[in-house]
Amino acid sequence: MTSQNPIFIPGPTNIPEALRKAVDMPTIDHRSPVFGRMLHPALEGVKKVLKTTKGEIFLFPSTGTGGWETAITNTLSAGDKVLAARNGMFSHRWIDMCQRHGLDVTFVETPWGEGIPADRFEEILTADKGHEIRVVLATHNETATGVRSDIAAVRRALDNAKHPAMLFVDGVSSIGSMDFRMDEWGVDVAITGSQKGFMLPPGLAITGFSPKAMEAVESARLPRTFFDIRDMATGYARNGYPYTPPVGLINGLNHAVTMLMDEGLENVFARHNRIASGVRAAVKAWGLELCARRPELYSDTVSAILVPEGFDANKIVSRALETYDMAFGTGLGQVAGKVFRIGHLGSLTDAMALSGLAVAEMVMADEGLPIQLGSGVAAAQDVYRNAAKAAQKKAA
Amino acid sequence: MTSQNPIFIPGPTNIPEALRKAVDMPTIDHRSPVFGRMLHPALEGVKKVLKTTKGEIFLFPSTGTGGWETAITNTLSAGDKVLAARNGMFSHRWIDMCQRHGLDVTFVETPWGEGIPADRFEEILTADKGHEIRVVLATHNETATGVRSDIAAVRRALDNAKHPAMLFVDGVSSIGSMDFRMDEWGVDVAITGSQKGFMLPPGLAITGFSPKAMEAVESARLPRTFFDIRDMATGYARNGYPYTPPVGLINGLNHAVTMLMDEGLENVFARHNRIASGVRAAVKAWGLELCARRPELYSDTVSAILVPEGFDANKIVSRALETYDMAFGTGLGQVAGKVFRIGHLGSLTDAMALSGLAVAEMVMADEGLPIQLGSGVAAAQDVYRNAAKAAQKKAA
Amino acid sequence: MTSQNPIFIPGPTNIPEALRKAVDMPTIDHRSPVFGRMLHPALEGVKKVLKTTKGEIFLFPSTGTGGWETAITNTLSAGDKVLAARNGMFSHRWIDMCQRHGLDVTFVETPWGEGIPADRFEEILTADKGHEIRVVLATHNETATGVRSDIAAVRRALDNAKHPAMLFVDGVSSIGSMDFRMDEWGVDVAITGSQKGFMLPPGLAITGFSPKAMEAVESARLPRTFFDIRDMATGYARNGYPYTPPVGLINGLNHAVTMLMDEGLENVFARHNRIASGVRAAVKAWGLELCARRPELYSDTVSAILVPEGFDANKIVSRALETYDMAFGTGLGQVAGKVFRIGHLGSLTDAMALSGLAVAEMVMADEGLPIQLGSGVAAAQDVYRNAAKAAQKKAA
Amino acid sequence: MTSQNPIFIPGPTNIPEALRKAVDMPTIDHRSPVFGRMLHPALEGVKKVLKTTKGEIFLFPSTGTGGWETAITNTLSAGDKVLAARNGMFSHRWIDMCQRHGLDVTFVETPWGEGIPADRFEEILTADKGHEIRVVLATHNETATGVRSDIAAVRRALDNAKHPAMLFVDGVSSIGSMDFRMDEWGVDVAITGSQKGFMLPPGLAITGFSPKAMEAVESARLPRTFFDIRDMATGYARNGYPYTPPVGLINGLNHAVTMLMDEGLENVFARHNRIASGVRAAVKAWGLELCARRPELYSDTVSAILVPEGFDANKIVSRALETYDMAFGTGLGQVAGKVFRIGHLGSLTDAMALSGLAVAEMVMADEGLPIQLGSGVAAAQDVYRNAAKAAQKKAA
Repeated sequence: MTSQNPIFIPGPTNIPEALRKAVDMPTIDHRSPVFGRMLHPALEGVKKVLKTTKGEIFLFPSTGTGGWETAITNTLSAGDKVLAARNGMFSHRWIDMCQRHGLDVTFVETPWGEGIPADRFEEILTADKGHEIRVVLATHNETATGVRSDIAAVRRALDNAKHPAMLFVDGVSSIGSMDFRMDEWGVDVAITGSQKGFMLPPGLAITGFSPKAMEAVESARLPRTFFDIRDMATGYARNGYPYTPPVGLINGLNHAVTMLMDEGLENVFARHNRIASGVRAAVKAWGLELCARRPELYSDTVSAILVPEGFDANKIVSRALETYDMAFGTGLGQVAGKVFRIGHLGSLTDAMALSGLAVAEMVMADEGLPIQLGSGVAAAQDVYRNAAKAAQKKAA
Repeated sequence: MTSQNPIFIPGPTNIPEALRKAVDMPTIDHRSPVFGRMLHPALEGVKKVLKTTKGEIFLFPSTGTGGWETAITNTLSAGDKVLAARNGMFSHRWIDMCQRHGLDVTFVETPWGEGIPADRFEEILTADKGHEIRVVLATHNETATGVRSDIAAVRRALDNAKHPAMLFVDGVSSIGSMDFRMDEWGVDVAITGSQKGFMLPPGLAITGFSPKAMEAVESARLPRTFFDIRDMATGYARNGYPYTPPVGLINGLNHAVTMLMDEGLENVFARHNRIASGVRAAVKAWGLELCARRPELYSDTVSAILVPEGFDANKIVSRALETYDMAFGTGLGQVAGKVFRIGHLGSLTDAMALSGLAVAEMVMADEGLPIQLGSGVAAAQDVYRNAAKAAQKKAA
Repeated sequence: MTSQNPIFIPGPTNIPEALRKAVDMPTIDHRSPVFGRMLHPALEGVKKVLKTTKGEIFLFPSTGTGGWETAITNTLSAGDKVLAARNGMFSHRWIDMCQRHGLDVTFVETPWGEGIPADRFEEILTADKGHEIRVVLATHNETATGVRSDIAAVRRALDNAKHPAMLFVDGVSSIGSMDFRMDEWGVDVAITGSQKGFMLPPGLAITGFSPKAMEAVESARLPRTFFDIRDMATGYARNGYPYTPPVGLINGLNHAVTMLMDEGLENVFARHNRIASGVRAAVKAWGLELCARRPELYSDTVSAILVPEGFDANKIVSRALETYDMAFGTGLGQVAGKVFRIGHLGSLTDAMALSGLAVAEMVMADEGLPIQLGSGVAAAQDVYRNAAKAAQKKAA
Repeated sequence: MTSQNPIFIPGPTNIPEALRKAVDMPTIDHRSPVFGRMLHPALEGVKKVLKTTKGEIFLFPSTGTGGWETAITNTLSAGDKVLAARNGMFSHRWIDMCQRHGLDVTFVETPWGEGIPADRFEEILTADKGHEIRVVLATHNETATGVRSDIAAVRRALDNAKHPAMLFVDGVSSIGSMDFRMDEWGVDVAITGSQKGFMLPPGLAITGFSPKAMEAVESARLPRTFFDIRDMATGYARNGYPYTPPVGLINGLNHAVTMLMDEGLENVFARHNRIASGVRAAVKAWGLELCARRPELYSDTVSAILVPEGFDANKIVSRALETYDMAFGTGLGQVAGKVFRIGHLGSLTDAMALSGLAVAEMVMADEGLPIQLGSGVAAAQDVYRNAAKAAQKKAA
């Protein structure tokens, strides 16, 4: 029923053996002190991954989408103004959620493949003399297009405009895999899930709230109970939850942050960059282009690859699954049929990445794309060999 | 880190080996057809457990509380009137949630240990000539007091009053363990979680919506995105989810319903009744009383046991954990310190139940309660032996 | 397919969760250094459990029986003289193995229920002026009768007789659960398996060879290859095996010895004694007797319980399995039908033991034995409560 | 601690998820009927894999080496004459075992890289007018050299010589992966282990005895107890074992044979041939040669690859492990340092194979071999794409 091949969807990721075992645990009494001994280290660990000392962490049995809902319902009221850019499927969905919750969203329509237009944000924020905009929404890494936006630039836009709006960042497909600096960037709510950089099964929304966001909670009028961080905070203070906690995932999260810290966050980021560089070298060797328009936008967690006119990217994905039992990501929304995606986040080795590239080559050739077999693999091998040599030199 | 003893909290339950393994799976592509082959049988299976052919099932990565929020946000608008009884912690919380979402809750204050006052409901519904009450909320099994209410009687109250209100039932600690008849009782939304009768880890809200409840969805104005069943329905139609589904739990649910059906639902209920009868016989032998006031209120999934004046029920629970590594449930809310609870739901054997009773005896004796060691065990043994003999006769 | 009840056979034991997970591992290259990092700590850990600093440990993918064959084929030649006592099934089988390998066995027929007659051994050894007896065989704990023999006394018999024979001890159902002192008792080969005190699945023969036994290896003429400890020693020196090692079990053994050491060996022995004392108190309360004839012979790992004339012990065991899904041990050999056995070794809690006693009571009552329900449980509860109180006093 | 990469040692193999879970089971009573319900289907399943209806299967907690010892000790006596060829490490070891057990071995020294010289066997057998040779030993697949010998030819040699000697075949690295016809080839003892074609952890010797071999058991004088198939047969007749059986592995074996039969044995063999063909195409593309001298000798389970003069094959293996965390097999014995081995047996996908080839390329390049990156991968991709196309045509 399950394949032995690694998966190359941009999350959920391949789950390391040790995390499989950490999650798979017998039932314990979640009201006993045993639970607190998992929960609190997990919360502290997430802070380290978010690079925050000031933020507070809340974990909901939910998903990244639930994390977004946590962010807005705990801080905003119907009619509140929000600024966003729409440059991919996930920013699109976040805007939609805001509208469904009665928020007043100003959004900058941005080409898919581009990052957040920090300069446009600055103009809009500067123009908002009355400081009516309560929140700026930013998607750090657009999973649909493989575009990483510059959150530090968004912060500068806010600062340059001297605007007090809060900054909420969707880091679902970046946190734990690419550098994320909650405190330094002045992020007020950071959002991710268990199934990406934390390499766990899905089921946890992971959120970080800055002191400023915490202050907004009391005045927020959007109705909420399940996602109310006040109840959650009360629960944490008693080593518990306002309802039944997802014990296994929290135990897994505790182990996952330990695993990330043992490797060293910067090493984790470097590893993602190395794997991604290999994939990008392969794309170039194939004569193809990424959806992300410029190198500084390239994501280290997912590559969305444009297929030439006349080819259907969806067929590449479905053929890979049917013929070689390997899962890649399809294009979503505007780029459906135009891109296929190789997820390269979480726990991945050079060898695993090469197997994905090798299968991608075969499938593209099967679909008639003018791909030279082995060419992408060779380009990636080159990247990985050089990285290994550099690492050995450094170690010596 | 984890005890070898079974747990006796009223959920999450002991997880059968086969369900542990079904949940613990490697990552698959949740957008591939493989996922649909888990999801749809799971949905169909839940229908059988709910005894509905007309209802639609929605599974959220969440908990029973999330299930409640799903029920109200998908069917109601701020200001809508709701009728409830408050006879325990969970009905209390549900009322609180409704109020936080701006609903207008009429509730009948009911002694803890009593069931839902169907006759009072009938009076109130009859008096509501304008049919302003949109929903009647009912908690089938109050986990805090070990009281099972008569949902059929609540339905009769609605029918007698010729009232069109919808009936929402919290079956969190009953469904899958005690008889639940969604269609026959005219339940419009049924709610449970993965971690009780379905014997899985926590992390899934399981809800069933009647056609009438489905109709209410379009006019409902409470904001919702994560819990919006319309998005979920759209997802299911495409074998998917509006966000990342909790694949392992859904695979587990599929196996859990198969397990329940293989045993036979009526046999599952009979087993719960047998185990519970043994526990109740033990309580009687100890000279103690249940919080549930009358036999027809006795829950087959959890027994809340009143400790005599002058003793602290919480100490029984904490001592059991510290001294004998066994988890019972504490009293909640009004009955905190006055009752301790033995959960006996999910997958449990006579032998496991007896080990819980034996430890309860030791702890009560340790705490100075006038308990004769072995007395409760002997009473339960008698129940279990007779049941075994009856079963053998029946088989012969 | 598998029961949730603990098992009460005298091994294999209930496997702790952590050891399940340690054994269940993906394939590694057993010729890589990774394997050595499991193997050597496991070997060192076993030494601690055997209380030997001088001995060498050899682990074979096999069972305790394979351990016996390892002992004799590596040290003896056809026609060599061996002294043994036959006081149970396992000593019986060991003698049979020696005879099938052409050894000349002198054995003292000893009543089942008695221990090794050290005084008779002393007489025989003293009479053996020519020192023709090469080895004395001793079964530390007769699993069939629940009798623990006094190995120190056997050593004294050898010493008193000033006899140079080697001492081989079957510690299969004692090592890791009851005190075993390889060096102090002058044991030359100690033998056990993975599935008893080490709480692992079956599949490993665990042997310890003294320097004197190691010296005997070169002159031993019994043919052997698979069990040849010279090949094994060569392998260990290269972090490997002469054939494919059972990697998971060796990883499990490494974790098991850590678990035993973390608890403290003397605490492990005390726990076994506590659990066993409770079982023995129950037997007394039932008005029954143990097969072991005197308290100093009582085993802390298994109790063989004599059923009154006119009852069939086998029926108790089969009925327990069929009716209550609980596994006890049948009587073997001479005592088949006359005893049933409760295994209480490995990882066991008071609560688990009580569940076994409760079911034993029910089954005996079902079979018509004049047992008062709850009586044995109450007697064991008393033992366990007192032990808990004593432990709390000590900790305070 | 454990890598996420697949392993490419020639066994133990990568273990499929379902078999991991089948082996990892809680303890059951191995004397209860539950065990028989695993054991007997496993035995029947092994017969199908061996293609025997007349043979009897015996499973020992041991390894392939233990299987060899089972074969000779149950059928032969000291001084008995045996004929063998020595064309690799495993045939070498088997001869050594025979000599250590006092057998009189005639062996044909055969170049490593060659198969069994059936014609020489025929000459020797024909010359043995007195029929003193009791057994012909044959290694079906020499794991050290990647050479598959022609067992049917060995049978013809015996038949042509009209010689009544028994034929014992080591099928450790062939059975379950390549065609093996016990009855058709007149194999008298077939031997394998759990960790190769059956895809399980190591720990089981799997043997099949023909009626003729069974007849030899009574007259065999080599001492044996642990490996005595008479005790084992007695055990099986009672649904048990003469000692503690490796329950998890036997449960796993039962699932493994079901898995092989579900795929279809011929499909399993074709899959191994496909994967192996890709590897061989890669070797050719690299400009290297196999140790196996001719195509008809090529093994479908392991390829031993000769490295050019001046390079150390061991360094390739150690560098692969250290740099890319991937395990290949070293050369053994005569070919140590001269070959490295890629194991491709058990459960393997095209994608996994390609990752192994990609890493092999990188390592060889790192070591200075004149390898063009991507060349071997491209050659294998070609093989796998063509095979997939052919399969699709066949299905259509």
